[in-house]
Amino acid sequence: MDFKQVFGERIKAINRELELSISSIENDRLRDAMLHYPKAGGKRLRPIVTMLVADAISKSGNTAMPFGIALEMVHNFTLVHDDVMDQDETRRGLKTVHKAYGMPEAILAGDALFAKAFEIVGGMDIDGDRKSQLTSLLARAVILLAEGQQMDMDFEKLEKVASEQYMKMIERKTAVLYSAAAQGGAITAGAPEPLQEDMFEFGRLMGLAFQIWDDVLDLRADEKLLGKPVGSDIRNGKKTLIMIYAIETLEEKKVERLLQILGKKNAIDAEVNEAISLLDDAGAIDRAERIASEMIAKAKMLLDDLPGNEDRKLLKELTDFMIKRDM
Amino acid sequence: MDFKQVFGERIKAINRELELSISSIENDRLRDAMLHYPKAGGKRLRPIVTMLVADAISKSGNTAMPFGIALEMVHNFTLVHDDVMDQDETRRGLKTVHKAYGMPEAILAGDALFAKAFEIVGGMDIDGDRKSQLTSLLARAVILLAEGQQMDMDFEKLEKVASEQYMKMIERKTAVLYSAAAQGGAITAGAPEPLQEDMFEFGRLMGLAFQIWDDVLDLRADEKLLGKPVGSDIRNGKKTLIMIYAIETLEEKKVERLLQILGKKNAIDAEVNEAISLLDDAGAIDRAERIASEMIAKAKMLLDDLPGNEDRKLLKELTDFMIKRDM
Repeated sequence: MDFKQVFGERIKAINRELELSISSIENDRLRDAMLHYPKAGGKRLRPIVTMLVADAISKSGNTAMPFGIALEMVHNFTLVHDDVMDQDETRRGLKTVHKAYGMPEAILAGDALFAKAFEIVGGMDIDGDRKSQLTSLLARAVILLAEGQQMDMDFEKLEKVASEQYMKMIERKTAVLYSAAAQGGAITAGAPEPLQEDMFEFGRLMGLAFQIWDDVLDLRADEKLLGKPVGSDIRNGKKTLIMIYAIETLEEKKVERLLQILGKKNAIDAEVNEAISLLDDAGAIDRAERIASEMIAKAKMLLDDLPGNEDRKLLKELTDFMIKRDM
Repeated sequence: MDFKQVFGERIKAINRELELSISSIENDRLRDAMLHYPKAGGKRLRPIVTMLVADAISKSGNTAMPFGIALEMVHNFTLVHDDVMDQDETRRGLKTVHKAYGMPEAILAGDALFAKAFEIVGGMDIDGDRKSQLTSLLARAVILLAEGQQMDMDFEKLEKVASEQYMKMIERKTAVLYSAAAQGGAITAGAPEPLQEDMFEFGRLMGLAFQIWDDVLDLRADEKLLGKPVGSDIRNGKKTLIMIYAIETLEEKKVERLLQILGKKNAIDAEVNEAISLLDDAGAIDRAERIASEMIAKAKMLLDDLPGNEDRKLLKELTDFMIKRDM
């Protein structure tokens, strides 16, 4: 699938609405800080999922778009706040919001993006009951995002993290916005509850696969496409599913060596490559790819509950794209 | 009015629901950080306003309580984030959340309190249209809060702030949660739109008076009751309505002397007292008291639109209390 060609028009429409919504902020500094990440572009995967699900069910993609934009706002708000928490200075080559505008401004811009998300849902062209359902879905998603982020921070202090704990964490930190995207599309489209639940599960699997694929890309991708050095998860000592599995299964000596390199901020490329070889010895990267593929296959099966139209076909292609993308 | 005696039972019920709602958070650290301020107590003025308005209109105070609690959550979330932005280490004798739990935890706890507020509205026992109205009211309030906080931060960098700018700032930063409290009570109670708007205006005036009275108290209150040193606004160089008026009206020499003391973090008590004398020379403190009183009088007139029952009587007493409280 040529992502840009297929979704280019939708992305343009999403970006237009996204920026328009933020432009109503009065204070220049606050508005600029809020626009910093949204203006840098992005694939807008979450709004696209919302729109495709709503289109597939009842051709209501445009009605559902604001909910997708609300999710994009929430996604951006968490990026802004996460960057403050992690004290990161750049994101995909761009200065982080707190580096460009100051820490207080970044906290505030995040809060205002969050509030805007709910304002957008309030302005949707649907009945009050559906709006209220979407609001609750959005609120629940952010609570889980916060739980996931706190788990992630807790993990940094732990020596060992179990695979199940990791999966629980990424379910909250990453998958939750995809499950909300798909379920939100179904709610807007007036789908019956069982279909809403299937779409939630579809989004959950898609989001999990997305994150696991992200971890794979960090080790295998082209540095230029990735926008950051290959193996940054190794240098940062991130306990991804890949690392956890390798630590659980490699022989003691190799684990020792791997742990020497993991988290070594100034590790040279040869060391990072050595760590990647050890992960390969454990078959950990291949295994992660396999797990992501299986999730994508299951997610696509759930899409068979949707009417068999062109939108469903596109949604299946998008689902496949999640583990084919190279950045 | 004996505040505790009249509202003690309501405050207990509000606190119970407030803590119960937060207790559903899974992660221990996140939950504890979220509970830090709510557990320290407070007058719960905003939920009480919501409940009294709803009771006065249609005896629906208990139905409206969750909206009041949502406002209390939002109020607490802004306290947590504001303390991070201002890098304050204590709040009313208590360690600030970021001091007690760390900066990342404080940002996250604030975000989660904010999300909880919307979840609570979603669970209210009213129809979808009203829920949606309340959600929009809440979202709008937080956007204005962020605008107000940014204005406040902008002011710190300005040498001169006009009175109108100050009023606009406190309307956003303080009054907005009172106007939302009163209007939210009216919406829950099913009030017609003109009455909703009057309640919004009532809350706005009440909130403005509350803030101006706060500025007066900082200069006139008993240190022990206040929970912080008298004149802390002077040491922090805060441009309150009182300071702005004195600077605008005093003779040049006195303004010079006042500006020497304003913002002097380590000013001794004698200097603070000298500044207070200068403010008194300008009649600035008395004037602020008068302005607050006039607002309270106007606010009470708006309450005459409500049915003439016991709840309205209580609401009038509470309105008077706003400028009679000593902390």
